Amino acid sequence: MDAYKAIVSKRDSRSYVDKPLDEGALRRILQAGRMAGSSKNTQPCRFVVVRESEQKARLAGCGQFAQHVPQAAAAVAVCLPPTGGDFDAGRAAQNIMLAAWNEGVASCPVSMHDRDCARSVLGLPEDWRVAVVLALGYPAPGIPLGRGIQRLSLEEFVRYERWE
Amino acid sequence: MDAYKAIVSKRDSRSYVDKPLDEGALRRILQAGRMAGSSKNTQPCRFVVVRESEQKARLAGCGQFAQHVPQAAAAVAVCLPPTGGDFDAGRAAQNIMLAAWNEGVASCPVSMHDRDCARSVLGLPEDWRVAVVLALGYPAPGIPLGRGIQRLSLEEFVRYERWE
Repeated sequence: MDAYKAIVSKRDSRSYVDKPLDEGALRRILQAGRMAGSSKNTQPCRFVVVRESEQKARLAGCGQFAQHVPQAAAAVAVCLPPTGGDFDAGRAAQNIMLAAWNEGVASCPVSMHDRDCARSVLGLPEDWRVAVVLALGYPAPGIPLGRGIQRLSLEEFVRYERWE
Repeated sequence: MDAYKAIVSKRDSRSYVDKPLDEGALRRILQAGRMAGSSKNTQPCRFVVVRESEQKARLAGCGQFAQHVPQAAAAVAVCLPPTGGDFDAGRAAQNIMLAAWNEGVASCPVSMHDRDCARSVLGLPEDWRVAVVLALGYPAPGIPLGRGIQRLSLEEFVRYERWE
């Protein structure tokens, strides 16, 4: 897919069909996360790929809006050490979700509101945390991507030289 | 450019030629930022596009490693309200930088270590902050993108089901 088209057409989606991810696609998706730039090239993020049903169900129990995680073909937990920041996690997550969309795979970031729960389920070192879980799956047919909420206009988003 | 190629070939770069951005390219770059998903579709980020020399120089004075900002064709400040998080800023920033790269425009995130300075230069409301400034410019020829630092191997980045 053309890069611009992939970027502007990507919508977060929580409805997936029951079909495992193509192995080559998953590898490219993870490569995209690996290649994300980071502050001073510290490469802080690590990814835990969860595909087993029981693990997905446990992860779903750590977030307030994570009910769809078990339906996802895979959940990729983006994990950070104490020195890592959410900005770099956002860059890596966006790379992962755009590469997924380029493979026809829909995705949605899922917050782990109970941090201790997510850390325990994934067996992370004590000082690490899950910045976000990315649910990935081939999109369910007939369900519109996103929830139909429009973006604000470009003029609303952009100012020139100064705020006003 | 193919989306996967754009994602995995993008390197942060601070060396630019003295050439303004194509207006159509800039518009697509900003559209990419606009279309980034966000937590509960709150769309928290706003972008201030700085192209005037004096404004770029003032912004450069707000960061410890921002010396290259005046050489950039444009600096896009990704701004957040108090309710906005760096994860969403990272998603929007990555969209902007990937769309830029797709137009042949190199970029680098620049931290504004002096937050009050950046807020004042851009005239932001008191409770807003600059999450990051993205320097954008056509890449200088003969200068390798990035600083030649390799990424860790994919195996180093990825674990399956649990940390260990």
